[in-house]
Amino acid sequence: MHAYKELSLQFEERFNVRHFPDHTKTLYDAAQYILSIRGKRIRPVCVYMANELFAPAADDAYNAAASVELFHNFSLIHDDIMDKAPLRRGMETVHEKYGHNTALLAGDVMFATAYEYLSKISATYLPRSIAIFNKTAKEVCEGQQLDMDFENMPQVSFDDYLKMITLKTSVLLAGSLQIGAVIGGAGFGNQEHLYEFGKNLGIAFQVQDDYLDAFGDAAKTGKQQGGDILANKKTFLMIHAREFATPAANAALDEFIQTNPANKVEMVLQIFRDCKADEWATELKEKYYNIAIKHLDDVAVSETRKAELRQLAVLLMEREK
Amino acid sequence: MHAYKELSLQFEERFNVRHFPDHTKTLYDAAQYILSIRGKRIRPVCVYMANELFAPAADDAYNAAASVELFHNFSLIHDDIMDKAPLRRGMETVHEKYGHNTALLAGDVMFATAYEYLSKISATYLPRSIAIFNKTAKEVCEGQQLDMDFENMPQVSFDDYLKMITLKTSVLLAGSLQIGAVIGGAGFGNQEHLYEFGKNLGIAFQVQDDYLDAFGDAAKTGKQQGGDILANKKTFLMIHAREFATPAANAALDEFIQTNPANKVEMVLQIFRDCKADEWATELKEKYYNIAIKHLDDVAVSETRKAELRQLAVLLMEREK
Repeated sequence: MHAYKELSLQFEERFNVRHFPDHTKTLYDAAQYILSIRGKRIRPVCVYMANELFAPAADDAYNAAASVELFHNFSLIHDDIMDKAPLRRGMETVHEKYGHNTALLAGDVMFATAYEYLSKISATYLPRSIAIFNKTAKEVCEGQQLDMDFENMPQVSFDDYLKMITLKTSVLLAGSLQIGAVIGGAGFGNQEHLYEFGKNLGIAFQVQDDYLDAFGDAAKTGKQQGGDILANKKTFLMIHAREFATPAANAALDEFIQTNPANKVEMVLQIFRDCKADEWATELKEKYYNIAIKHLDDVAVSETRKAELRQLAVLLMEREK
Repeated sequence: MHAYKELSLQFEERFNVRHFPDHTKTLYDAAQYILSIRGKRIRPVCVYMANELFAPAADDAYNAAASVELFHNFSLIHDDIMDKAPLRRGMETVHEKYGHNTALLAGDVMFATAYEYLSKISATYLPRSIAIFNKTAKEVCEGQQLDMDFENMPQVSFDDYLKMITLKTSVLLAGSLQIGAVIGGAGFGNQEHLYEFGKNLGIAFQVQDDYLDAFGDAAKTGKQQGGDILANKKTFLMIHAREFATPAANAALDEFIQTNPANKVEMVLQIFRDCKADEWATELKEKYYNIAIKHLDDVAVSETRKAELRQLAVLLMEREK
């Protein structure tokens, strides 16, 4: 069993190669480019950690880890196209650098490459791994569609936002852990617990993300405070405020969207505080974090084997950015 | 063994259902929409025919056939986005009807659904089928990228155009036949012959497509004669003309692209005739058709079992539209 940093390095060492042929250069350079903007590789590490709960990680772990990382990057390329985002992790997005059509195709070919790695998994574990992967892939698309649908809706309920966030961001974390468990030889019950651990941890992470955008220390997050407020984004906080703020405060929120006053962030934060959205979000985060931990508790392996995953959960929650 | 019409109906009967859940309606309605614009279902029929060469077709055939048809439709959605095409088979394209972003995602989710059907193939045949499918999927993306690259190049060589056309249109036909052979229990040699049969037949079909656009009877093709010429498309005919027409004719071709004279189609057709591009294309079509048939000849099953595939090849070549 290895800690996050070790596994992240171990994965990176093998993953940091060109994953595509040289020919049809335009296409494959675009695909390789986004991989060179290295992320935190959280999902591949989750595959390894879940595998190591049950058995030493071998080639299956790398292939599954590479697969989920490629899928994640495919979804980033297409999301950036849809959002017309100019930057990704401070670098030009693929469509900015290589043009819309090549970016679209680079995403497609990366999706196919994700399946290429996945299909290298041993025959014993392949059908189950691919079933989880397929389901997850569809759900991530559903989440992105819901996110776009919500942009055009004046208000979104808590349940709907939770569903969208779960699909868009949590299920891939959950699926990575579940596939890791599968290739580690875990039984069905343990696979499910790891899935639920990841899903609820992902939700807690997102609640925190929304919280930090509003109440985080800009010096630590490295982002402008209230970025979501300025962009009129529906977040856990805003959805809570819409439900629990006074009618006058709700009318003020409507007005701020129209008029974009200079002190918008400050005024909205005050409304959040008045309806205790900040306290509520902190409790909500704790709630999902605790559900996640309960599922990890329930995984039927010795406590000592769980240390790395417990640490990962703490790591994700302790971040201030 | 069944003929094209029977298999096409047999497939359609099972395939003509909603392939997606109801929720996330926007996304799945868009995906289902393109399937309702029914095509000729040539690729699914190829899966069935290749399977029936070796053994009666069962569930594996349907799952593989649905998979290649979904993949084909995924590629149509994304190609139409890239080409900014308003119409597909006389109907609104997905992005025209549902918007760019939903169309992009509908393509993605259809790609995942293709893998969902594919992964239902029996464990014995799954690894080989998925390997063929992955390779084919990547090649189709490569073909589309080359096609876009060629648009920005003043001239393209015959070999490069052949490669692009093979990747963009022939390998999926070839892969469908090969997967059909795999799930029919064929040996490696027979699988390869069916792949080569499909690949070369696909090339012959494309040569004919280019030929008919220029020299076909508009009343029969239902298309404007010389559509490719008007759009300045690089076709087998144009590439031959660029190589074999006189310098004066080549200069005229350059001028026509700049000036778009009213009699452009007529003038270009004359250049094609002068350098015998029409005769050459007819021979080229025959050449690839004969290579295809040679591979079908070499498949090691009794001649009587090959009747339906021979008929399919004739059918594809006899069309006038």
